[in-house]
Amino acid sequence: MTERMSIIVFSGTVDKLIAASILTTGGAAMGMEVEVFLTTWGLEAFRKDSYKTNMKVSSDFEEYAPIMMEQMMAKKVPSWMDNFTNAKEIGDVKIYACSMTMELFGMKLEDLEPIVEDVTGVAVFVERAKEGQITLFI
Amino acid sequence: MTERMSIIVFSGTVDKLIAASILTTGGAAMGMEVEVFLTTWGLEAFRKDSYKTNMKVSSDFEEYAPIMMEQMMAKKVPSWMDNFTNAKEIGDVKIYACSMTMELFGMKLEDLEPIVEDVTGVAVFVERAKEGQITLFI
Amino acid sequence: MTERMSIIVFSGTVDKLIAASILTTGGAAMGMEVEVFLTTWGLEAFRKDSYKTNMKVSSDFEEYAPIMMEQMMAKKVPSWMDNFTNAKEIGDVKIYACSMTMELFGMKLEDLEPIVEDVTGVAVFVERAKEGQITLFI
Repeated sequence: MTERMSIIVFSGTVDKLIAASILTTGGAAMGMEVEVFLTTWGLEAFRKDSYKTNMKVSSDFEEYAPIMMEQMMAKKVPSWMDNFTNAKEIGDVKIYACSMTMELFGMKLEDLEPIVEDVTGVAVFVERAKEGQITLFI
Repeated sequence: MTERMSIIVFSGTVDKLIAASILTTGGAAMGMEVEVFLTTWGLEAFRKDSYKTNMKVSSDFEEYAPIMMEQMMAKKVPSWMDNFTNAKEIGDVKIYACSMTMELFGMKLEDLEPIVEDVTGVAVFVERAKEGQITLFI
Repeated sequence: MTERMSIIVFSGTVDKLIAASILTTGGAAMGMEVEVFLTTWGLEAFRKDSYKTNMKVSSDFEEYAPIMMEQMMAKKVPSWMDNFTNAKEIGDVKIYACSMTMELFGMKLEDLEPIVEDVTGVAVFVERAKEGQITLFI
């Protein structure tokens, strides 16, 4: 039976989005199904073109942000969006938008990056997460 | 056998408390047992009457806070406390206070909202979480 | 079969490191294998001697930080580093550094506190986490 990793992406800072995208890639590389559920600020980060200008880093560590960004550029580290795109190419990765956040923020599926599959509710996400092996809230 | 979702609520910002309460509601609606373990700032948020004035939003996204709060009022979105109350009515939801935080902050059970069941230790929480299907740290 | 708790420590604030170390201690006390995967700011927090001066508290709750720190000193609460050290003594606890963060931050294993076992990749962490019972992202 296929194993599943379910990740709730609540945060929209670049450092946490990188972590989420690398865990997604790791899960896909291990042959797991990966379901990503975008909610609140994590969903806002997938608004069309938003990733191109999002330079937010967790404010608790903002003094390290310039060094991190500089190192990422110097070492040509792929962006989190590249990681998610790549993860979808190598494995079974689904990215869903939280229906409640969509309604609250007045968003439609076409307002989001095309990498977002579909809109879904929390109950469906929970139903599928409980059959899986790894559950994370980021 | 009953399935279980175990959520550690560490944060006390309204946006994360909403996420925790909606996941709790989703789990309860799916027929899962939901155990919520309040620790640190998450426990502080359940101090009596504190939810009535708590307007904290993750500081990483504070520029969106006024719009979010306004939309929540306009769309009459239930508060996170309403969600937890509702989740307890529809399903098997238990909300526990972390004994170490209680001691550190000098709190007693009567200082907390009545929705909080009881005080418990981390070992008991872990013991029960490991038998379950979903574990999250919020 | 031994049960396993897998914790990704992404954050490097003292309040979250305390939570991570207490959950690790709880898991070890319950006889679980505990694997801690240090990434990003969580890894930075394990840089040699860094814990001696790290006074960071989640900025969302910084107004409570002085009271928390004062209570911790008054009540002689062990530090998070003490908790991790103690957890390793009582149980099967492994602390790993994320290889990608090491490379990004230009770190070597000898730059880290000796409590850190070894360097490992996210795929290995995921492979082991999916066999376990509890997975958390802190």
